[in-house]
Amino acid sequence: MQPEVNGADDFLASALVHKTALTPDADAFLKEREQSASYDVERVPLASLPNWHLGERLARADGKFFTVEGLSLTTDFGPVPQWTQPIIVQSEIGILGILAKRFDGVLHFLMQAKMEPGNTTFVQYAATVQATQSNYKRVHGGRATPYLEYFLEGTRARILFDQLLSEHGFWYLFKRNRNMIVEVPEDEDVPVHEDFTWLTLGQIRRQLTQGNGVNMNARTVLSGISYGTATGEDPLPAGEALDPFHAQLLASHRTPRPAGEMNRALTWLFDQKATYTLDAKRTSLHAMGEQWICDDDSIRHRDGRIFEIIGMSVQATSREVGTWFQPMLQPTPGNTVALICQRRDGILKFLIQAQIQPGLTDRLELAPTVQFSPGYHRGPNDFPPLTQYLDAPAEWVRLDAIQSEDGGRFAAADTRHLVVEVPEDHQVEAPENYRWMSLGLLGDLIHVGYHVNVEARSLAACLL
Amino acid sequence: MQPEVNGADDFLASALVHKTALTPDADAFLKEREQSASYDVERVPLASLPNWHLGERLARADGKFFTVEGLSLTTDFGPVPQWTQPIIVQSEIGILGILAKRFDGVLHFLMQAKMEPGNTTFVQYAATVQATQSNYKRVHGGRATPYLEYFLEGTRARILFDQLLSEHGFWYLFKRNRNMIVEVPEDEDVPVHEDFTWLTLGQIRRQLTQGNGVNMNARTVLSGISYGTATGEDPLPAGEALDPFHAQLLASHRTPRPAGEMNRALTWLFDQKATYTLDAKRTSLHAMGEQWICDDDSIRHRDGRIFEIIGMSVQATSREVGTWFQPMLQPTPGNTVALICQRRDGILKFLIQAQIQPGLTDRLELAPTVQFSPGYHRGPNDFPPLTQYLDAPAEWVRLDAIQSEDGGRFAAADTRHLVVEVPEDHQVEAPENYRWMSLGLLGDLIHVGYHVNVEARSLAACLL
Repeated sequence: MQPEVNGADDFLASALVHKTALTPDADAFLKEREQSASYDVERVPLASLPNWHLGERLARADGKFFTVEGLSLTTDFGPVPQWTQPIIVQSEIGILGILAKRFDGVLHFLMQAKMEPGNTTFVQYAATVQATQSNYKRVHGGRATPYLEYFLEGTRARILFDQLLSEHGFWYLFKRNRNMIVEVPEDEDVPVHEDFTWLTLGQIRRQLTQGNGVNMNARTVLSGISYGTATGEDPLPAGEALDPFHAQLLASHRTPRPAGEMNRALTWLFDQKATYTLDAKRTSLHAMGEQWICDDDSIRHRDGRIFEIIGMSVQATSREVGTWFQPMLQPTPGNTVALICQRRDGILKFLIQAQIQPGLTDRLELAPTVQFSPGYHRGPNDFPPLTQYLDAPAEWVRLDAIQSEDGGRFAAADTRHLVVEVPEDHQVEAPENYRWMSLGLLGDLIHVGYHVNVEARSLAACLL
Repeated sequence: MQPEVNGADDFLASALVHKTALTPDADAFLKEREQSASYDVERVPLASLPNWHLGERLARADGKFFTVEGLSLTTDFGPVPQWTQPIIVQSEIGILGILAKRFDGVLHFLMQAKMEPGNTTFVQYAATVQATQSNYKRVHGGRATPYLEYFLEGTRARILFDQLLSEHGFWYLFKRNRNMIVEVPEDEDVPVHEDFTWLTLGQIRRQLTQGNGVNMNARTVLSGISYGTATGEDPLPAGEALDPFHAQLLASHRTPRPAGEMNRALTWLFDQKATYTLDAKRTSLHAMGEQWICDDDSIRHRDGRIFEIIGMSVQATSREVGTWFQPMLQPTPGNTVALICQRRDGILKFLIQAQIQPGLTDRLELAPTVQFSPGYHRGPNDFPPLTQYLDAPAEWVRLDAIQSEDGGRFAAADTRHLVVEVPEDHQVEAPENYRWMSLGLLGDLIHVGYHVNVEARSLAACLL
């Protein structure tokens, strides 16, 4: 099976364009937007959040937005067979949408300079629209979400990508968002509101490799971009010279897929799903056991592990609502996601892991080679496999950038993104639930939905 | 996106062969196997089941097999916004596998005449292998599952179909099985054990249209059969005359898919998923409210609605274990699933419904036009849409057959399967969550997994 992808050549051409008159300086635009507004973000006790109540679960009186509940887990995957943790429950589907349009024949993407209270770098490029159903049904009585109509039934133009994809499986229960890229015709006028600007994919790519310039919600949408399959003639602009690693990435994206490759990968994935079990049961927050403390200040682990649910007060001038209070999940620091890659049979392939996670819709998805959250482990004895590559020699490192998680839910959630290319003669000792894949195959799996987790997609976006 | 399918021409050729020397009379084989063994199935009180305990949940002391728990539901789909019910929880993935092999160039399928205690017609054709992990890890200490090795990692031959598919969403929580068809080479000897025989797809087709001849687990596997896309020349044997409806079915299976048709169908499906929400929460059986009675005899609804969890004692000579006791789910009678079809633009299309169900992995899947369980409704006022077609004029009815649900879990669970072809000038008034699809498109959606529910797949198997 190979997904039918749209706009592959346009995506590729845009990725090779680094300058546009529409946004002469993408860094400066972000900086300017950041200076134009002021934000005051402050941690407050959970008990002080208006409208929120901490009992069996943490919830608003009106039931809106999301709840935090207890989760009791049993699994035969990994070193810890049983644990409890809080989890965010939000069953509605949000829309993460990027609007695209050609200017002078080059596809541009309408990106929003967006403040998110949880981000350590407040203002980053976001998707054109990131709207929960509460948002766009205006539960909080704020302003309408601009550009939303381009992504709704009946008023969409050409769909380049549309898929339901999972969110963080350790933090959310069964959460998924709808990831969309919609192209409007070249001759259709699109008003550009304050905070919005058109970027080429080449410009977005540079923001991604710099780190902390493109937010999580935009990264997951961008991971749906496919460059199609090489047909012999690459549409490289005359005189364009790619750096060698970028050239390898493009070749890995566009490598022709052997017949049955996708079905074989899925059969392997089903083998992994059949090998490991997970039983996840929602409980009262008070039933999580004595290692969890729920009090007026926060919901936290006795030993400071896993993560903490805290209260936050936010004052801002550039979001739909000027001032608000909300709970946020603050992970323990040090989260790292890493992909190991290697030239194999002439093509760059990436070592992908099949991993059980508490909140995933079907329990197991494909994850980065290493997905390391120190707060989940009691010590080096139960660190996940291959963590030694996080200290790879500098000459193997192809990407090392900090990216933020969704700053609308997660506080100070910075994740180090690392890509390590090991030499061709280096032998990686990986367990059975790991598999080498080209970026093309990984992209096909993203296109089918619920097979590739958000951490792996975030890394994939950095490898466009 | 169009799935890469294997063996399409072989499947089609086999569907047109109704006789084989390997099984001269498929009816007689079933009858003979039924007479060769004796079964004694008897309802007993839940409290009398050895090893099972009814408390917060109904479970075995050793935690094996499955549990029955309470489920609390809130949804905005359908007329009932909130209810509680028991649900079967079994998180492991079972294998449902059919072995295929060519004889004289014609693909045959190794079917098992299998007794299931819950079936009203005890012995039916089953898949070659139907094994839960408990089964094949021999939790119950019985005999090994024959032919299992053909479906396991490392010892499989050619995979014709391999997909995780959902089970009954009103009865099981998040249950899915692995549906496989594996072809062994023509020159490989396969021993034929007692109770097993090779059938052509044409013979299986006849058993399906007769009703109660092919069990649920075999039907869901068979729904994964694809006849591919018509290339102009149909491999009909010389002199073969199809009845007109069968010819229309084949054309609907093999109709060329317009570019982007699958992506448009998925976009519509995501629209439905975004429209409706479902929150399902596991609870204690005792927390289901006063309308549910849990006592030594059974777990049942005060008004006899929904379904009942009963105890069963089984004595048999042709199953892995001779005598056993187990709980079973007994639905209220009268379950019907129906597909409405109509020639549209020259091709037979089927009206498919997007439906929320309590236990589905992603909450909503595609269901038959009408999926009617009288026990779920208080009266005609909250019957689902289009139930009037269950009384369609006889000349519109193309299939009307009773099929059993999985007789290993469900007692006397007979479901009427109905296919109604409305005239081309007849206007069906369907709500927005309904869509017309060719069998080819429906088959493609089955191939992607978790999009088509087991009731729709069971009907699709009857339309091969």
